[in-house]
Amino acid sequence: MSILFTFFRSSASFRVRIALNLKQIPYQPEIISLPNGEQVGGTFLAQNPQGLVPLYVDANGSFSQSLAIMEYLDEALPSAHRLLPSDAVGRARVRSLSMLIACEIHPLNNLRVLKYLKHELKQDEEGVNNWYRHWVAEGLQTLERQLIHDKHQSAYLHGETPTMADCCLVPQIFNAKRYECDLTTYPKLMKVFENCMKLHAFDQAQPNKQPDAA
Amino acid sequence: MSILFTFFRSSASFRVRIALNLKQIPYQPEIISLPNGEQVGGTFLAQNPQGLVPLYVDANGSFSQSLAIMEYLDEALPSAHRLLPSDAVGRARVRSLSMLIACEIHPLNNLRVLKYLKHELKQDEEGVNNWYRHWVAEGLQTLERQLIHDKHQSAYLHGETPTMADCCLVPQIFNAKRYECDLTTYPKLMKVFENCMKLHAFDQAQPNKQPDAA
Repeated sequence: MSILFTFFRSSASFRVRIALNLKQIPYQPEIISLPNGEQVGGTFLAQNPQGLVPLYVDANGSFSQSLAIMEYLDEALPSAHRLLPSDAVGRARVRSLSMLIACEIHPLNNLRVLKYLKHELKQDEEGVNNWYRHWVAEGLQTLERQLIHDKHQSAYLHGETPTMADCCLVPQIFNAKRYECDLTTYPKLMKVFENCMKLHAFDQAQPNKQPDAA
Repeated sequence: MSILFTFFRSSASFRVRIALNLKQIPYQPEIISLPNGEQVGGTFLAQNPQGLVPLYVDANGSFSQSLAIMEYLDEALPSAHRLLPSDAVGRARVRSLSMLIACEIHPLNNLRVLKYLKHELKQDEEGVNNWYRHWVAEGLQTLERQLIHDKHQSAYLHGETPTMADCCLVPQIFNAKRYECDLTTYPKLMKVFENCMKLHAFDQAQPNKQPDAA
């Protein structure tokens, strides 16, 4: 059986947990505690020199970076639920939406950045929270704007079945809720979020349903 | 002819300029001045609601996010120079290396983040530069570590021809040099950088050879 090195609160791990569920790929979770720094401990670092979760391991090798893992899963198991559309233009759109979240929002709000703000830039809790909410708002406003007037947006971010882009959106909304960001101004995104959360694949991947949830 | 909305100093635009050159796709550059805020001006925003460069436009549509554009170019013109390897495991590796740069380093150091540090967090020039160098060092150390025991790394980040990962590395090294980051501790990366810069496709894509360079 394949293995997913994961942490319940890691958004990038959450994305891959959804993707594995959508594709109905069974996996063994191996917990890497980020607060305990296990991702940069010697044992894990030997397996993933990037020192990040998730890491996905199957008979073909070890795979890092959540979007690269999802692309790989889709190529390795094309007969299961498709995470990317079948046409090149659609794939480009799904990748672009995914990267808007994965490259423009998430990197600014992960744990190591918040730690730097606190310890190096001496930001208090309010300063850190303002930073967090600022980048979430910038990113989600952009995403909401992109969806208005876009004929491809439907029940999900792209069409009538969930794609890699939805696997990125849902963990980002979970994070935004945790930091009490105002989400009322993103009706299109929140409708997609609701539709996703009705699906078993998304529901079962959420942080508080993981074995390492407190 | 296809159009690339670009800015000479934009790393993400630089990536796509290299990719277009490698694939020998002719294009018309349209300059979007980031310091003048043209990326969020009404005219451009109507074309790219993400409000970011690069934007690539051809007969099939408009394409945003540099990595998504490169994937699209490779799918649209498979007979030209391949930006991604032919095997799924190799593609996953190239995507992972690309995303290590595009998701873990670059987003922390782009213009809007540096502006926030200066104006909202009241960081002086030294504070901003320390931030910049910190994340470059973190990211490049990780990348160098990943290459050390990796049999796939050769003249380029993956094998004997440049891939999407090299299109991401070179602009990042240009940025690091501009901010006077110490690059002596990354011998493997710098060797790849040198090999890339010997190629016309990389050389001609560099910032100071663009029509909008000062």
